[in-house]
Amino acid sequence: MKALLKTESPETDPATGSRSLGTVETREYTFAGPLELESGETLGPVTLAYETYGTLNAGKSNAILVLHALSGDAHAAGFHPGEEIPGWWGAMIGPGKPFDTDRYFVICSNVIGGCKGSTGPSSRNPRTGKPYGTDFPFITIGDMVNAQRHLIDFLGIEKLLCAAGGSMGGMQVLQWVASFPERVRCAIPIATALKHSPQQIAFNEVIRQSIMSDPAWRGGDYYETGQPERGLAVARMIGHITFMSDRSMEEKFSRKRKNGGFRKFDPDFEVEGYLRYRGDAFVKRFDANSYLYITKAMDRFDLSGGRLFERTIPLDTRFLVISFESDWLYPSSQSRELVRELKRGAADATYCEIRSTYGHDAFLVEIEEQTHLVRHFLERTFNGNGTLRR
Amino acid sequence: MKALLKTESPETDPATGSRSLGTVETREYTFAGPLELESGETLGPVTLAYETYGTLNAGKSNAILVLHALSGDAHAAGFHPGEEIPGWWGAMIGPGKPFDTDRYFVICSNVIGGCKGSTGPSSRNPRTGKPYGTDFPFITIGDMVNAQRHLIDFLGIEKLLCAAGGSMGGMQVLQWVASFPERVRCAIPIATALKHSPQQIAFNEVIRQSIMSDPAWRGGDYYETGQPERGLAVARMIGHITFMSDRSMEEKFSRKRKNGGFRKFDPDFEVEGYLRYRGDAFVKRFDANSYLYITKAMDRFDLSGGRLFERTIPLDTRFLVISFESDWLYPSSQSRELVRELKRGAADATYCEIRSTYGHDAFLVEIEEQTHLVRHFLERTFNGNGTLRR
Repeated sequence: MKALLKTESPETDPATGSRSLGTVETREYTFAGPLELESGETLGPVTLAYETYGTLNAGKSNAILVLHALSGDAHAAGFHPGEEIPGWWGAMIGPGKPFDTDRYFVICSNVIGGCKGSTGPSSRNPRTGKPYGTDFPFITIGDMVNAQRHLIDFLGIEKLLCAAGGSMGGMQVLQWVASFPERVRCAIPIATALKHSPQQIAFNEVIRQSIMSDPAWRGGDYYETGQPERGLAVARMIGHITFMSDRSMEEKFSRKRKNGGFRKFDPDFEVEGYLRYRGDAFVKRFDANSYLYITKAMDRFDLSGGRLFERTIPLDTRFLVISFESDWLYPSSQSRELVRELKRGAADATYCEIRSTYGHDAFLVEIEEQTHLVRHFLERTFNGNGTLRR
Repeated sequence: MKALLKTESPETDPATGSRSLGTVETREYTFAGPLELESGETLGPVTLAYETYGTLNAGKSNAILVLHALSGDAHAAGFHPGEEIPGWWGAMIGPGKPFDTDRYFVICSNVIGGCKGSTGPSSRNPRTGKPYGTDFPFITIGDMVNAQRHLIDFLGIEKLLCAAGGSMGGMQVLQWVASFPERVRCAIPIATALKHSPQQIAFNEVIRQSIMSDPAWRGGDYYETGQPERGLAVARMIGHITFMSDRSMEEKFSRKRKNGGFRKFDPDFEVEGYLRYRGDAFVKRFDANSYLYITKAMDRFDLSGGRLFERTIPLDTRFLVISFESDWLYPSSQSRELVRELKRGAADATYCEIRSTYGHDAFLVEIEEQTHLVRHFLERTFNGNGTLRR
């Protein structure tokens, strides 16, 4: 058995030395639509960039949909040719990992509104032949999930074994349950919320203002003139502060000084240099308009007050809710509120707050405890022979 | 006695109905200098805008220096002609108030580096005849205090009864004790820190980047072309988020919707409209370069590790340290660290954490408890007959 698996996955993860998914590729699925959006507008054709890892079993009962956060993409695990860094949840997805590709078929797709291969504001508007820009309709977390449902249909999967994700990925997990409760056997919402607090909205609004205040934004019509790089870099710097904790910044940077720059107000603390580096790197890989649309979708998301269970059919989805102690952007109080809402709906829900100093970033980096929790939760749901245990 | 006081202060505070300081005016004190700065550079001539309230007693023992925060000014109390809003600490300074102008002589001056009448980057550079811009030298909290010391000398005051202030004002309080321990009888540092954490530096750095990323900043040389308004507005929006608490935002805004704008990404939550309003209002009253210089002075401030007591003379300054429960920008842990440092120096220090949901803004708005604490602390230090009690 072990030898066979080695033959299936001959490459080794250079980071951990463990068996690796090896090279993976992003595919595209396009459907004509039009997709009816919650705003009343329509979108079509719709392309979803997606990746899959592992093999769908004969009963099609081992499919796990992994949902990405704000700036994520379909590349959740494995390596793209020539790259040395795996996908964004590479430590969690792969042979022998908690989302075990020896057992499960893992799917990840880029959200609509994004800029990593799925239809978004930088895509060609069929009506004009040019990029949509701000002619792109507002999209919601519900619209993202509805588009994903088309992909799941296309893959021939009637019921997902699991939907899992952190931050905005966790919102999509909850939205899957709200929109299609009969199609999700278990759900793992991590470091997320039923709705944004005014503070979360406020940070997103400042991020949007930073982008829109850059004259290079040009009302969203910048695809021929170039990104609003400076506004987008500042926006991402704000984001990075909120992703880290006071404590993790202290551990990583304290008040260490940089070798000084030459001009006044060049960074003189390491934390300043780090933020500038992350901001500048981001503008090379992300579209400013997508940042506007996706943050707005997050701010408008609201499954509080019973909306998680609007459908009247009984909910048999099992939940594993995870939050992190030092996460002040999506504080544990929001996960506890989610658990209360699940319990009010008589749902089968387990909650765990993981000790961590990494702040909101923890869902990407606190692998050991998440591995333990996710592995056992999935095993309790799926017995490994392709049948559902319950 | 009461009749006499009424004659001295005939006006009534329209906000509270209490006796009012009435109309006050900002004065200027200019000295040739040059002021030797910590950077090794010099600055001169130096003008300090200042206001005073109450009367200096014959023994010159009743003087209280009030220090302002980042965007404050010399106008701490009373009313400027035609204005209906009192100075920034109007609720704390005045007849019968904790900084009681019937008993004490209260002084407040705008910091150097500022833009409210004291010498700063928008002032005329005598070498060029034009505004300094970024030719203005870096200034430190120590330089601010050293300039204030010239003003206190000019007013003929040998020893301050008290130095008091919140946030950056609290840093100046501590710097007064570090620089001139023999000239401060008691000190009230509020919602402040011995040094900025990397998170505090990070927020300030993003604020600076927002300003400097606006093309209208032009390397700081914008006095003929106009402020970098958009970058400065975004910078201030970031600040406002950090001044409030998650809870105070929830109480004030929750997820209330605004009447929608006409364009995409116009604010649709009230919290968004509030932040935009505050950002836009700020650019009308504050100079962008001053924001850069003053935030940098705060970031470089560091009186930790024994530097508060570098001088070897015994410290007989009494301390009242105040922090606020929901203040996450200057968390109570920083005030507790300050108190530990004071106790290690065998200083006479009292500490109180005030319950509040207002976040960092609390030092400006939580009047009742501060009134009680400050009034009694000052009374214990000063006996009212102009002599010092100890």
